[in-house]
Amino acid sequence: MKRDYAVIGLGRFGGSICKELSSEGMQVLAIDADEDKINEYKNIASHAVIADSTDEATLKDLGIKNIDHVIVAIGDNIQASILTTVVLTDLGVQSITVKAQNDYHEKILNRIGAHQVVHPERDMGIRIAHNIISNNILDYLELSDDHSIVEVKAGAKMGGNSLVQLDIRAEYGCNVVAIKREGDINVSPAADEVIKEEDILIVIGADKDISRFEKHLVIDR
Amino acid sequence: MKRDYAVIGLGRFGGSICKELSSEGMQVLAIDADEDKINEYKNIASHAVIADSTDEATLKDLGIKNIDHVIVAIGDNIQASILTTVVLTDLGVQSITVKAQNDYHEKILNRIGAHQVVHPERDMGIRIAHNIISNNILDYLELSDDHSIVEVKAGAKMGGNSLVQLDIRAEYGCNVVAIKREGDINVSPAADEVIKEEDILIVIGADKDISRFEKHLVIDR
Ligand SMILES: Nc1ncnc2c1ncn2[C@@H]1O[C@H](COP(=O)(O)OP(=O)(O)OP(=O)(O)O)[C@@H](O)[C@H]1O
Ligand SMILES: Nc1ncnc2c1ncn2[C@@H]1O[C@H](COP(=O)(O)OP(=O)(O)OP(=O)(O)O)[C@@H](O)[C@H]1O
Ligand SMILES: [Ca+2]
Ligand SMILES: [Ca+2]
Ligand SMILES: [Ca+2]
Ligand SMILES: [Ca+2]
Repeated sequence: MKRDYAVIGLGRFGGSICKELSSEGMQVLAIDADEDKINEYKNIASHAVIADSTDEATLKDLGIKNIDHVIVAIGDNIQASILTTVVLTDLGVQSITVKAQNDYHEKILNRIGAHQVVHPERDMGIRIAHNIISNNILDYLELSDDHSIVEVKAGAKMGGNSLVQLDIRAEYGCNVVAIKREGDINVSPAADEVIKEEDILIVIGADKDISRFEKHLVIDR
Repeated sequence: MKRDYAVIGLGRFGGSICKELSSEGMQVLAIDADEDKINEYKNIASHAVIADSTDEATLKDLGIKNIDHVIVAIGDNIQASILTTVVLTDLGVQSITVKAQNDYHEKILNRIGAHQVVHPERDMGIRIAHNIISNNILDYLELSDDHSIVEVKAGAKMGGNSLVQLDIRAEYGCNVVAIKREGDINVSPAADEVIKEEDILIVIGADKDISRFEKHLVIDR
């Protein structure tokens, strides 16, 4: 089943969503009040329209209520973001995702019927803070407050040893769930797989176990 | 070894980094030209200073060259972001991460010596586009162009079956590396572990295998 999307607000965040949905073959209606933005996206989106999204009649004319999922990515103008969301819920749009500027904005958006509220800058700030703290951690997925999946470079201490020799599960309570090597990814590494210094390991575990693992096996000092 | 950080520009992205580094117990110097921002962060960061970061003398006086890692999170004013980065490299800062507005900005930042360039809005746009396309995918870590780790809700088709009964590895080529259930996470699920409908599964594999898995086992229609 093919679904239709609309993205309202083509800043960096909304623009990126519009590009990615389009490149995955989705039908995307792009809306922005700024003519330059519409010119930039008219060859990327299926349709690109200059419009003020706070105007109910305009959104109605665009057939917005037949669109399966609308993303509101208006930034600095919180009032326009809220008004747009009200119009979309009034028109009966089934699925509405809205970018929030802060917790107060989020509270209002939830109250007026947004189905999903996202904080791209805040969430990416948290991710990048973690990458920065542990220089060794290349990427990061938080599973819960105290469990994560991390990507780490194997390093000299591990190189030449097999997974069973390193005994990471017993020693540190975390698991190596994949190994990246020279562009390939092995998502079912065998126990006798020998690690190379340049390998990237994907490791799952409790944050405190991952820290211990990183301190003992990854850091080269 | 404890390291010192500075965050220049306390918008949503820079502010989030400042908060997360501070909450992880790091020493953080927060800098913004806007007094309101400094008032907001003075009880969060170790030090918070009103300053124009394009002014070399000011950054020198703040002892910026002794700080291990500086994050430049100035947004709309690309010129200020570039000038600040030049000043930081001139003063010999060891590690500089800069937020870019677009590819052209990134190119310049790399040329003048930024050590890491990040695109928070763009990267989060890509992530959220993927979450939106597959309604079932709750979170997402891209391991490479064609491999990912995803979080999916188990759903009715899987509930009541054990991992070995579902035979996900053989049937779909992907692995369930963890199970979230009622706030707990099991990062070493046993083969005879019985899945409940409300479980969140963490699955690793090739994108095409994950799609197939999702289509056959997750979607309830
Ligand atoms: N009422 C409106 N109708 C349509 N588009 C609007 C409306 N108000 C704002 N926009 C558009 O939303 C887009 C994003 O707004 P803005 O640049 O303030 O957000 P931002 O959060 O700074 O963006 P970024 O994702 O780049 O961080 C702009 O291109 C703007 O023209
Ligand atoms: N020369 C400068 N010196 C110090 N701080 C500055 C300078 N120029 C801009 N800033 C600060 O940088 C911060 C971020 O700038 P801005 O709000 O334009 O970025 P943004 O990309 O829209 O932010 P967000 O992360 O919220 O998306 C602001 O608080 C601003 O006061
Ligand atoms: Ca902005
Ligand atoms: Ca955490
Ligand atoms: Ca932004
Ligand atoms: Ca991809």
